[in-house]
Amino acid sequence: MLVCHALSGSHHIAGCYEDRPNSDGWWENMVGPGKPIDTNRFFVVGVNNLGGCYGSTGPMSVNPATGKCYGADFPLATVEDWVAAQARLADRLGIDCWAAAIGGSIGGMQALEWTLQFPERIRNSMVVASTPRLSAQNIAFNEVARQAILSDPDFHGGHYYEHGVVPSRGLRLARMIGHITYLSDDQMADKFGRQLREGKLKFNYEAEFQIESYLRYQGDKFTGFFDANTYLATTKALDYFDPAAKYGGDLRAAMARAKADFLVVAFSTDWLFQPTCSYEMVYAALHNGLDVTYVEVDSTAGHDAFLLDNPYYHGAVRAYMERITT
Amino acid sequence: MLVCHALSGSHHIAGCYEDRPNSDGWWENMVGPGKPIDTNRFFVVGVNNLGGCYGSTGPMSVNPATGKCYGADFPLATVEDWVAAQARLADRLGIDCWAAAIGGSIGGMQALEWTLQFPERIRNSMVVASTPRLSAQNIAFNEVARQAILSDPDFHGGHYYEHGVVPSRGLRLARMIGHITYLSDDQMADKFGRQLREGKLKFNYEAEFQIESYLRYQGDKFTGFFDANTYLATTKALDYFDPAAKYGGDLRAAMARAKADFLVVAFSTDWLFQPTCSYEMVYAALHNGLDVTYVEVDSTAGHDAFLLDNPYYHGAVRAYMERITT
Repeated sequence: MLVCHALSGSHHIAGCYEDRPNSDGWWENMVGPGKPIDTNRFFVVGVNNLGGCYGSTGPMSVNPATGKCYGADFPLATVEDWVAAQARLADRLGIDCWAAAIGGSIGGMQALEWTLQFPERIRNSMVVASTPRLSAQNIAFNEVARQAILSDPDFHGGHYYEHGVVPSRGLRLARMIGHITYLSDDQMADKFGRQLREGKLKFNYEAEFQIESYLRYQGDKFTGFFDANTYLATTKALDYFDPAAKYGGDLRAAMARAKADFLVVAFSTDWLFQPTCSYEMVYAALHNGLDVTYVEVDSTAGHDAFLLDNPYYHGAVRAYMERITT
Repeated sequence: MLVCHALSGSHHIAGCYEDRPNSDGWWENMVGPGKPIDTNRFFVVGVNNLGGCYGSTGPMSVNPATGKCYGADFPLATVEDWVAAQARLADRLGIDCWAAAIGGSIGGMQALEWTLQFPERIRNSMVVASTPRLSAQNIAFNEVARQAILSDPDFHGGHYYEHGVVPSRGLRLARMIGHITYLSDDQMADKFGRQLREGKLKFNYEAEFQIESYLRYQGDKFTGFFDANTYLATTKALDYFDPAAKYGGDLRAAMARAKADFLVVAFSTDWLFQPTCSYEMVYAALHNGLDVTYVEVDSTAGHDAFLLDNPYYHGAVRAYMERITT
């Protein structure tokens, strides 16, 4: 089966490198022997998406035409392109048909896209915390994140590698904005509230509230391992994805081609991709006579819930996986 | 009566300058002869808050100690400081007691603060689309906006005036983030949806979707008239405001001093300061035996609704004003 990653993920889903004991994969709690996605039963394939910064050809790769990094000249890949590239990998691996494809967030878009672009090559599509299209508000957040990077003087039109710099100010802001949208209002209140770092106000621009400190830390950390051009391009792929657009916005018509069974999972406090986005996919699948299981998990964790341990969520994935025959 | 302004407002509430026919005030639809706040009945006072950039002493003022602009050395003023300054203005004007103070958003915080700091000097407090304290999510959005400005190379530690530049990249991003939080998800969907500017995708980083174009326009426009140091300081005042903090978080105890009657107005789709924030003020006022009128206006316009024309909202303010005796 195929596991598709989200914005900052990679092909490294689970397990650690022999010489690096802390190198866990991003979905360690979901994938492994005896886990909900049980590697004792399934051969699990992870792919770094085209344009990524963890090994796939992308903006950091050398452009043979110039002998320099592609940078901003690397073509913008869409969710459709990612899935087409994954299909070519499947060809190479001799996989005619996946037992299942699963992904959260943008990963879920890929799991959906597989059923549309290659309906004969996927038996089960597991779409978690995802949406069939971004809303204006979703695009707005992506656009501010992009503008933060594009307007960073160290961006150099996307050719910062040649200047020996990275647009870290912009990438940091982009990640901070992202983190606000990944957490629910309630969870932020529970986790940070109005707690101060040092017990009293300082009346300056240092981090005074715990939430400020958290966001700065997340932003700083991200600039150390993620590429700004990949960030830009990935948010564009997100914005563009809209399989219903060719059908006048009718997802039911777009999904008429699909043949897979579906598991659709949404989280109650996910305000980035709200449960209503999942309803639309469930409705379109049902309309086309497809077998669809929908689980709405009560969780305070917002969009991030798809990465976290939750007995109802993991139980649902486990139960769904158990009914898939190999 | 006193009208308190929000983040980007000023003392110029209504009316235009004789020689500038398009110089309308920011609350033209609310304040004027025959309007809900009827200047035929009330003498209306507008103040530019301390630290502002429209005339009050602020970061752009000359620091007599150095002969240069204060810049980042201008002390951070709190909502309490603003109200204290307004009280000194009232002294100078010979106003012992306001018939009413009204404000939306941060303006509402000032209307509330008046009842706590000067309970004998205000008869009616009209708190619109406001909150008795910011949530962690609110602070998070402010913090990203501040980091955008603080990390702009043109910020120069807040002394950009001396360098003949303004941190326009950062201020632009701050305003874009702000605009996302002022509009509701639904209104963004209605107003912009996934509409493209030129009918087709361009696969580059130009503004492709209408919402991108809108945000860039709003961001660019803002940098032309607003000062970045004032923006920073105002978001800090917002973050700090929390009259209940001294009472273990109990707003009922904090409001025991208040004597004014209250009109509290919230808007159904305001996700920045949700109606639940208003409930807390209403509950605390009731608990203290105060006369409180609460209006929750059904509106798709999000937080921005407090600036817009709406018959229920304006009708409620008008009706409340009519019962105030002069």
